[in-house]
Amino acid sequence: MEIKIMKNILDRNQNRADEVRALLKDKNVVMVNIISSPGAGKTTLLERTCGELKEKLRLGVIEGDITTDRDAQRLKKYNIPIVVINTEGGCHLDSHSISKVLGSFDLDNLDMLFVENVGNLICPSQFDLGETFKLAVISTTEGDDKPAKYPMLFREARAVILNKIDLLPYTNFSFESFRRDLRKINPSVPLFSLSCTRGDGLDEWFEWIIDQSHK
Amino acid sequence: MEIKIMKNILDRNQNRADEVRALLKDKNVVMVNIISSPGAGKTTLLERTCGELKEKLRLGVIEGDITTDRDAQRLKKYNIPIVVINTEGGCHLDSHSISKVLGSFDLDNLDMLFVENVGNLICPSQFDLGETFKLAVISTTEGDDKPAKYPMLFREARAVILNKIDLLPYTNFSFESFRRDLRKINPSVPLFSLSCTRGDGLDEWFEWIIDQSHK
Repeated sequence: MEIKIMKNILDRNQNRADEVRALLKDKNVVMVNIISSPGAGKTTLLERTCGELKEKLRLGVIEGDITTDRDAQRLKKYNIPIVVINTEGGCHLDSHSISKVLGSFDLDNLDMLFVENVGNLICPSQFDLGETFKLAVISTTEGDDKPAKYPMLFREARAVILNKIDLLPYTNFSFESFRRDLRKINPSVPLFSLSCTRGDGLDEWFEWIIDQSHK
Repeated sequence: MEIKIMKNILDRNQNRADEVRALLKDKNVVMVNIISSPGAGKTTLLERTCGELKEKLRLGVIEGDITTDRDAQRLKKYNIPIVVINTEGGCHLDSHSISKVLGSFDLDNLDMLFVENVGNLICPSQFDLGETFKLAVISTTEGDDKPAKYPMLFREARAVILNKIDLLPYTNFSFESFRRDLRKINPSVPLFSLSCTRGDGLDEWFEWIIDQSHK
């Protein structure tokens, strides 16, 4: 019975996701659905990325959080349009919420819209927001077994970011084991090894994400 | 509509949770529902705890994972009964699954049953398994803002473990900020600062958890 109910929600969700996707395509806006565990570094990645890209692309951000506007506050300094969706207990964003808040953006003057989903490695990967693509973020301190244990997101992501590589020396994270498990699930997905605090790997990431706005 | 559906699930869940709780009380078994983000260190905590407690208490473990039995494999060396529940995409354990697997344990010869929930800081906190109490595990590398951003779990937990304090020097985690936010949500919950890899704080934790078996 539980599974059937979920199916109903997913079907309803899909309908609105298709509308969102069609609207964004019409307006030539790329929407990036960023998904990770709590604390993997989504907001720090966005700080770095908005800082670099804001002179090159017209950006917007949707911040999904259960409660508080803390992440949005951290991005205010870039002076780009930001909308917060507080899910009030909800474990993921859905396409209905996205559809509602899109009206707050001037889509004719936007190239890329980042959606920071609720911190959760599972549920957000099961809900289509109408995004152009999903971006998976994982951090070294979470352990190298995450692709094998949480395969859904890694299967669907157009790119994977391995964050916090500055902490690698202090963990038992095996890059080889991580890479091998990831490749079993998604053989060709681009993988970026970053430290968003220290700056490692960011140039390659910036180049890739800018490229996505032309596709 | 979505909220109504969740309510129905929760009500159904509650009914079985009460049965589980009554059975465990009758058998004098303490069930600990361990909840955290992916990679916060639940399994390493269980390795340490089972290693220390297995001569003092009769232990059992239920391992909740979306897929794989990797966590259970890590606990095999302690020679205690372990049952794996693979949720196959499900983002939390529920009381129906717990009720089904309890038959695999000899409850008359058990003092404490640890349940390692699916790695997710949100959904598991909303589903009553019939546990004696919830244990929240958070790691320093996830950031000090987690109690404020994910308050449900921290409100309900009987104890909070702050893990990976060995990595504190390499992060911008503020213990004061974390503690202040936690205290707003749950003023009196015991807080244990641990490094399950290096061993910091474990003696105090062992003492507390052993005490719970007498209550």
